[in-house]
Amino acid sequence: MSEDKRTELHELGEFGTIELLTKSFQNVVPSTVKGVGDDAAVIERNENEFTLISTDLLLEGVHFNLMYMPFKHLGYKAVVVNLSDIIAMNGKPEQITVSLAVSNRFPVEALEELYEGIHLACSVYNVDLVGGDTSTSNHGLMLSVTAVGVVEKERIVYRTGSKQNDLIVVTGDLGAAYMGLQVLERERNVFEANPSIQPDLDGFDYIIERQLKPEARKDVIQFLKELDVIPTSMMDISDGLASEVMHLCKASGTGARIYNDKLPIDSMTSTSAIDFNLDPVTCVLNGGEDYELIFTVSPNDYEKIKGNPHMSVVGYMTDHSEGIYLVDKNDSLVALKAQGWNHFE
Amino acid sequence: MSEDKRTELHELGEFGTIELLTKSFQNVVPSTVKGVGDDAAVIERNENEFTLISTDLLLEGVHFNLMYMPFKHLGYKAVVVNLSDIIAMNGKPEQITVSLAVSNRFPVEALEELYEGIHLACSVYNVDLVGGDTSTSNHGLMLSVTAVGVVEKERIVYRTGSKQNDLIVVTGDLGAAYMGLQVLERERNVFEANPSIQPDLDGFDYIIERQLKPEARKDVIQFLKELDVIPTSMMDISDGLASEVMHLCKASGTGARIYNDKLPIDSMTSTSAIDFNLDPVTCVLNGGEDYELIFTVSPNDYEKIKGNPHMSVVGYMTDHSEGIYLVDKNDSLVALKAQGWNHFE
Repeated sequence: MSEDKRTELHELGEFGTIELLTKSFQNVVPSTVKGVGDDAAVIERNENEFTLISTDLLLEGVHFNLMYMPFKHLGYKAVVVNLSDIIAMNGKPEQITVSLAVSNRFPVEALEELYEGIHLACSVYNVDLVGGDTSTSNHGLMLSVTAVGVVEKERIVYRTGSKQNDLIVVTGDLGAAYMGLQVLERERNVFEANPSIQPDLDGFDYIIERQLKPEARKDVIQFLKELDVIPTSMMDISDGLASEVMHLCKASGTGARIYNDKLPIDSMTSTSAIDFNLDPVTCVLNGGEDYELIFTVSPNDYEKIKGNPHMSVVGYMTDHSEGIYLVDKNDSLVALKAQGWNHFE
Repeated sequence: MSEDKRTELHELGEFGTIELLTKSFQNVVPSTVKGVGDDAAVIERNENEFTLISTDLLLEGVHFNLMYMPFKHLGYKAVVVNLSDIIAMNGKPEQITVSLAVSNRFPVEALEELYEGIHLACSVYNVDLVGGDTSTSNHGLMLSVTAVGVVEKERIVYRTGSKQNDLIVVTGDLGAAYMGLQVLERERNVFEANPSIQPDLDGFDYIIERQLKPEARKDVIQFLKELDVIPTSMMDISDGLASEVMHLCKASGTGARIYNDKLPIDSMTSTSAIDFNLDPVTCVLNGGEDYELIFTVSPNDYEKIKGNPHMSVVGYMTDHSEGIYLVDKNDSLVALKAQGWNHFE
């Protein structure tokens, strides 16, 4: 390495660094259909199907805190967040590999609990654990999960396909996982200040469960099939709605309008946000880890999804030149900013 | 986690821990052909082919030392060791994903060098980088690589297929990567004791290159095809020959005889071993990271591989009841022990 220049990682940020590092790579293998840049890589499989591959790293102290994340939940969540990436391509997850590095701080019993959670996720989502790697680490616990899935060629959905006037739809409700994290962090601080005080998590069950035991929206893929809807673009919501809307717009070359008052927020998310002096809309836009789906559909499909209890139309795609804005209650436009989880900031 | 029992990881060892953690998992997805337990997982692809998936973790301070491992070599090696697992199934690697966690100790320029090595490996082995994940870490650098490959169904080779009297064949020469590591460690110790002394690596080029820039034996897969040989079992040699022979015997339900004087050892490996007061045969048996292949063939195929400069017949499979032994120069039997790299010891 040349010693005369040193660029810090935070100067480029996570996405800038990935772009820099991967820009010189070109796909040359005939079976590679889509490489870096979507929720999952796409590989030729057979006449009718593609194989999907997605991978995630989870590090103690960066992605999870074992003070409030039980091992079983950690195992479950590590699997689910990867399955979510396969689902976000309109695909069906089928296999996972799990690699694990642990320091000698952890006994075998902790790993057994971790694998109980992995096993549970495999059962719930009907996927097989087919491989992995196990190693010691000098510091803490880390997990690397790779998910493999399959999708019918005619039903695959990329981030790139949305067009002006397409409706923007999100599933479930948003911001809950972020507020769950706030409650857990608060109780951790209380506990650290005074270990004799028991954590008070009463009345926060839903948002804590959304943080500790998220689910991937496999059911939505089935609903879309039953409704005979193929989204024009889709991804999962892991870094907050604002960041994901901007990803879809960038990939598809569009602008967007998102309506403040259309955002699906659970009442527990709202009340706890207000408790914490946070704006619930900010939690939805910038709070991560909900693992809901955002997708766009042609206006012609509106009748098919209208009133569906799992789906909320939150806005629409515009021409690229019109920018990406949140429309507030007074019809004022506020430029969306991606303040989601940048792992290098 | 129950507090009343604590089993340390080293009590079970790496393979014992993996066995314990994965024993309750059963494959239920029809497309899963083979899960945990071979070099790669095997997934249904189409009428004629399977997809292969393999994954490895590489951690600073556990698997590599940046004091003597240049970033570019690290990137190259991280890819190669994964491709080796696909090749060990008689398959062709086609895609990789690379996940990376780095602390802010590392500048962007270091990662650029790392990715130069990854890029070079992709070019040399004709594989595409199709995805990954990037994150900060609190301590050091870690890499998780997943390789995807393809194999003709009729040519796939598992660890499980060898039979009594099959010949045991290894490719290339063994023990060199381990001796390269010894030289690098010695020079590191000299340097740490007195930083003004330049490392003296003269005359050790081959064994150092075997440690820092190993190659996966993609060429052997091609040779086997040309020779019209399908091994009865195969795996790659990452943890030392003894450990791998025992894996093949366990998977296939056989015993084995390995002949001391048939082991392929490069002269530089021998002379440097003697320099270090090590037995060259011990380096071959227990030194890891050569990434050569070990395979077994039916005695009927002996004529096809006899005299092949890339392949050495080192022994044969016996009935399980006859045990696993090294035959030394005096025809004495020495029980083989797997003293290879156990990541929990």
